[in-house]
Amino acid sequence: MKTIRVGIIGVSGYGGAETARLVLQHPSAVLTYVTSNTYLGQPLHCAVPGISRSPGLVCDAFEPESAASRCDLLFLAGEAGLAMKIAPALLDAGLKIIDLSADFRLSDPQQYAHWYKAEHSAPQLLAEAIYGLPELNRTRIRDSRLIANPGCYPTSAILALAPLRNAPFVDYGSIVIDSLSGVSGAGRSKFGPDTHFSEVNESVRPYGVGGTHRHTPEIEQALSRIWDRPVIVTFTPHLAPITRGILTTAYVTLTAEPPDLRTYFEEFYKDDSFVVLLDAGTFPTTKNVYATNNCHISLALDRRANRLIVVSAIDNLTKGMAGQAVQNMNIMYGLEEATGLPRSAVWP
Amino acid sequence: MKTIRVGIIGVSGYGGAETARLVLQHPSAVLTYVTSNTYLGQPLHCAVPGISRSPGLVCDAFEPESAASRCDLLFLAGEAGLAMKIAPALLDAGLKIIDLSADFRLSDPQQYAHWYKAEHSAPQLLAEAIYGLPELNRTRIRDSRLIANPGCYPTSAILALAPLRNAPFVDYGSIVIDSLSGVSGAGRSKFGPDTHFSEVNESVRPYGVGGTHRHTPEIEQALSRIWDRPVIVTFTPHLAPITRGILTTAYVTLTAEPPDLRTYFEEFYKDDSFVVLLDAGTFPTTKNVYATNNCHISLALDRRANRLIVVSAIDNLTKGMAGQAVQNMNIMYGLEEATGLPRSAVWP
Amino acid sequence: MKTIRVGIIGVSGYGGAETARLVLQHPSAVLTYVTSNTYLGQPLHCAVPGISRSPGLVCDAFEPESAASRCDLLFLAGEAGLAMKIAPALLDAGLKIIDLSADFRLSDPQQYAHWYKAEHSAPQLLAEAIYGLPELNRTRIRDSRLIANPGCYPTSAILALAPLRNAPFVDYGSIVIDSLSGVSGAGRSKFGPDTHFSEVNESVRPYGVGGTHRHTPEIEQALSRIWDRPVIVTFTPHLAPITRGILTTAYVTLTAEPPDLRTYFEEFYKDDSFVVLLDAGTFPTTKNVYATNNCHISLALDRRANRLIVVSAIDNLTKGMAGQAVQNMNIMYGLEEATGLPRSAVWP
Amino acid sequence: MKTIRVGIIGVSGYGGAETARLVLQHPSAVLTYVTSNTYLGQPLHCAVPGISRSPGLVCDAFEPESAASRCDLLFLAGEAGLAMKIAPALLDAGLKIIDLSADFRLSDPQQYAHWYKAEHSAPQLLAEAIYGLPELNRTRIRDSRLIANPGCYPTSAILALAPLRNAPFVDYGSIVIDSLSGVSGAGRSKFGPDTHFSEVNESVRPYGVGGTHRHTPEIEQALSRIWDRPVIVTFTPHLAPITRGILTTAYVTLTAEPPDLRTYFEEFYKDDSFVVLLDAGTFPTTKNVYATNNCHISLALDRRANRLIVVSAIDNLTKGMAGQAVQNMNIMYGLEEATGLPRSAVWP
Repeated sequence: MKTIRVGIIGVSGYGGAETARLVLQHPSAVLTYVTSNTYLGQPLHCAVPGISRSPGLVCDAFEPESAASRCDLLFLAGEAGLAMKIAPALLDAGLKIIDLSADFRLSDPQQYAHWYKAEHSAPQLLAEAIYGLPELNRTRIRDSRLIANPGCYPTSAILALAPLRNAPFVDYGSIVIDSLSGVSGAGRSKFGPDTHFSEVNESVRPYGVGGTHRHTPEIEQALSRIWDRPVIVTFTPHLAPITRGILTTAYVTLTAEPPDLRTYFEEFYKDDSFVVLLDAGTFPTTKNVYATNNCHISLALDRRANRLIVVSAIDNLTKGMAGQAVQNMNIMYGLEEATGLPRSAVWP
Repeated sequence: MKTIRVGIIGVSGYGGAETARLVLQHPSAVLTYVTSNTYLGQPLHCAVPGISRSPGLVCDAFEPESAASRCDLLFLAGEAGLAMKIAPALLDAGLKIIDLSADFRLSDPQQYAHWYKAEHSAPQLLAEAIYGLPELNRTRIRDSRLIANPGCYPTSAILALAPLRNAPFVDYGSIVIDSLSGVSGAGRSKFGPDTHFSEVNESVRPYGVGGTHRHTPEIEQALSRIWDRPVIVTFTPHLAPITRGILTTAYVTLTAEPPDLRTYFEEFYKDDSFVVLLDAGTFPTTKNVYATNNCHISLALDRRANRLIVVSAIDNLTKGMAGQAVQNMNIMYGLEEATGLPRSAVWP
Repeated sequence: MKTIRVGIIGVSGYGGAETARLVLQHPSAVLTYVTSNTYLGQPLHCAVPGISRSPGLVCDAFEPESAASRCDLLFLAGEAGLAMKIAPALLDAGLKIIDLSADFRLSDPQQYAHWYKAEHSAPQLLAEAIYGLPELNRTRIRDSRLIANPGCYPTSAILALAPLRNAPFVDYGSIVIDSLSGVSGAGRSKFGPDTHFSEVNESVRPYGVGGTHRHTPEIEQALSRIWDRPVIVTFTPHLAPITRGILTTAYVTLTAEPPDLRTYFEEFYKDDSFVVLLDAGTFPTTKNVYATNNCHISLALDRRANRLIVVSAIDNLTKGMAGQAVQNMNIMYGLEEATGLPRSAVWP
Repeated sequence: MKTIRVGIIGVSGYGGAETARLVLQHPSAVLTYVTSNTYLGQPLHCAVPGISRSPGLVCDAFEPESAASRCDLLFLAGEAGLAMKIAPALLDAGLKIIDLSADFRLSDPQQYAHWYKAEHSAPQLLAEAIYGLPELNRTRIRDSRLIANPGCYPTSAILALAPLRNAPFVDYGSIVIDSLSGVSGAGRSKFGPDTHFSEVNESVRPYGVGGTHRHTPEIEQALSRIWDRPVIVTFTPHLAPITRGILTTAYVTLTAEPPDLRTYFEEFYKDDSFVVLLDAGTFPTTKNVYATNNCHISLALDRRANRLIVVSAIDNLTKGMAGQAVQNMNIMYGLEEATGLPRSAVWP
């Protein structure tokens, strides 16, 4: 098939950098266009030091015409609010878009305004944008030209809980999601004490306590749809002194004896090669999915407390961001879904 | 007052080592006796390399007569099961004992047998042993000769939740305790992949999922007593790539509008100088209590989900073990409770 | 071309695991045989938890006949001393061997006996074994059936210094090599305090101080050959709290004004796509080569002290072990040298 | 004796914070005055989150009159260049000063201008300022009112090498100093990629390669004085992913058989309780001096290469900064030199 010409807007952020790593090793895509304000005019390897030899690429300023003439598909990895500003013209120019920001994730512009404290500038595209979680929306992704790539925490939380639909043994009001993320999730545009090595290393801390993190409504929207009922969850993110990885421990109170839940989950994910249900008694660790597009999941019952615990692990930059974006690209172009995506972790 | 002559059984483990650090800088105690099987006959600084210059101390084998003649009080920091074996004779010899192991924490020998898979060999002492959490049991500690020093996770969990007694707005069956610990909690006697640097670093993982961790009944016993009702909790520990520290995030579903909870907590801890309620909006981090005997606590309400979240942080080796042990010693000898204990964290 | 059938002896060690990761993503090789004593009879993903879905592979016991019938080439990643024991029969059976251990690195059996405290059991193969550093020995590797894959420290040190041949401005007796390694270099077979997370994290320490590390003669042998003169160096390894990576800082006293050294190095490595001379003023970091087969090198002159400083960085498990082994395989089979090898770092 | 009233200018930096930790636990000093521009008007525990309960202290703006009326001694821990601006008036007002910055370390104002790219604004004080390395200058510190507290790297390097005076077996032109520092050495005023957790963790890198680091002339000045000869060294600092600690490995080529060097060093440091020569065969690790004022030193001979290797370890914030400053204060006030200073490491 024809090679896909790919551009990355905001290549010097961690999401952009990881996308570049994956596109550079993709057999059916070629990186033709990268932009960065910070590294404008400099070779790609200055913006992304893990790339030793740039294939002639220099960081450009973003221009819709350049993008349209040099690319078939754009990954938007710039700051919040950029995508909704530039997407309309890019779509008009015939480009496909995978947006790694949060701009198109919430379907309701009022929800967007509430959680992101800003008016949405392209509400007409919200209905069209597909939430790019392939395990839930594969078919709709295939035919879309605008993908809202999921957030990292939502990916781990939704994959952990989605199979519990039509589950009469579940207290849907009881859901507590406790997650830990590596520091790369905080991005590369703001530097301060909160991400400074000396204050992060040898420390763990929560943030957004009390349901104030913006990924909360994203999780609720996806679970509400798949479960076909309104859902409110308590979600608490924590920062751990690791660079990559999200571990989610989700708690669900049971109202009745559940069926064999492993079978339940296996059936749900039978077509999803990146979701791996671990052997019974084995639990996810972020290291075992490091730099892969995998999501590891395990289940446990606390029979004393009548509670189900589901644990999931992903790499926040890969399955939680750039890997999932490439997975979406593969689906949009009819490629085998795992093309070019790492399955074996960089371990240890 | 008279200097307390102190011995440490099992000085080369992390609990023993931290106890040695604190006793060596204590103005009213002197370290007179240390034992270690691994470092038998070697100077203390070989067993505990953070101690540069041993004050003439050499690691002895444990002998009850030596202990009794050289010490007023013994910290038992040896392997599980040792304390219940040696305590009766040591008490008979007139020694005071602070046991850092789990041997005397559960009052019910059947509970002990169930969770620790072994018969208790000194059940006659269980009624006498005082659970050494000063914030709950200060008075009884004062008059005791046998202290069961609390576990690290229980210390963080109990201090986070204890103030919720007689709280008609609390669903007592809803409690989920999600904790993270540094690797020093795994001790220094077993080495393997689970604590090997290369497999722990850059990774986070849960363990004991489904309510199987032995600290579960210890948490439940303490909360049941203070709340005066039977309590079952879901407790999930996680391992984080830090050496020291425990962060606990506890979730409590609310059945009614709560009162001003901060006042509630402040009142409960008004006499406890090591428990610090952080400024509103500030949350605990393990770094901010590093190497101190403090417990930092914050509260948040998730109003959308009607849930209270309490977060606490301690240093697992200090307030979670050796510092609390020294705090107990201070109480037993009528010293000011904070004597010799660090209040300012080694930060950053 | 025909797919290469590959076996890995000792797959559950870190070198074996990294080899498995690379072989599984190699377009011209297939993993047909893996052995592990520790995980005997278990699926590959139990031995190497970063591999989520084993392609039907189970850890076998090593048997020469099985190896010969199922493989074209074997990577020997077992314990020290195994390779020299099993290599003769495997070669006789027609297999090609890439030995990741030190057994065949020193050409002189007396040197081997001196440094490794054991007699060499297959000295007849020492002359035939080719030191598998492609940048120095590419042609000889191509025609070999027995490759002694270089040590990790030697790879970083030799690549940093090799270009200084026939350099009349160099004091060849002045060479000091100061290196840092990640903990994965210590392997996965011995567990103890020295690699225990709690004692390694937040710590840096030297070892083998005074020229006692076994990689010293390996560095000297290679430099002596390329420089055509006997060389004695001072080499000091250090352990840093990272999982992967080696950083080498090499010091060379100058006896005269040197020519343009960058050109010197560029010329030397003009055919070596994995060796990257960084932009002037930019220095290697281990993160920028993480999980790649690259070696980054920079030069600096200390004009006040008349000294040249060369800094190199590799990933000890990739270019320092398994990646270099696969690079050697590629050369032996006439493949493009970089086939299947990662060039862009997992960054950050 | 009378309690020393102490002020800290720039308390929210890491040096200021560590000074505050040590002063708060000092039996003969009281913290009466702290300043911070960033946390102006806020309680001390906001500026230094490791301090849980501020003893009523609020961060002030710096005013000479306030300082003079509230303090006997000031620790100057503000930005570079501040000390030379404010010291003259403070000294005139009768205050004693211990300057933690580099302003008064180089005696020659031209050297200062060369290395720090700025004119010295108080050159008249350079002759009076005493370089506050107690092991070399104890007597002169006692009688001084202006101490130039040494840099962290220089402390570790000078203590490692100083004993080699009048050593006819040493090639004084051969000295190579290779050091690693924790990230806290970079301070808390500038935040960017170089100290961002995600780019520092799991990475090691050199900087200031080629003798360009400003601590080079400080090391040379001290060694030249103690050795009574001009000295040029090659010094290369590296950044390691630890928060605290400096490890220095120093290389000295020998021109003749040396005497028993251990005795040499022991004799030199016989009155210095913070310098610990480790048991033969044991080498320093930064963890073993964590949060102490100790300097651990070991020696090894590389007999094959005729080279002496000296390794030293300190905590860069304690012996390398605030601990040494308090040690200097103790000397200036005739206190026992170790008063209030930690000797046992926070370990592990």
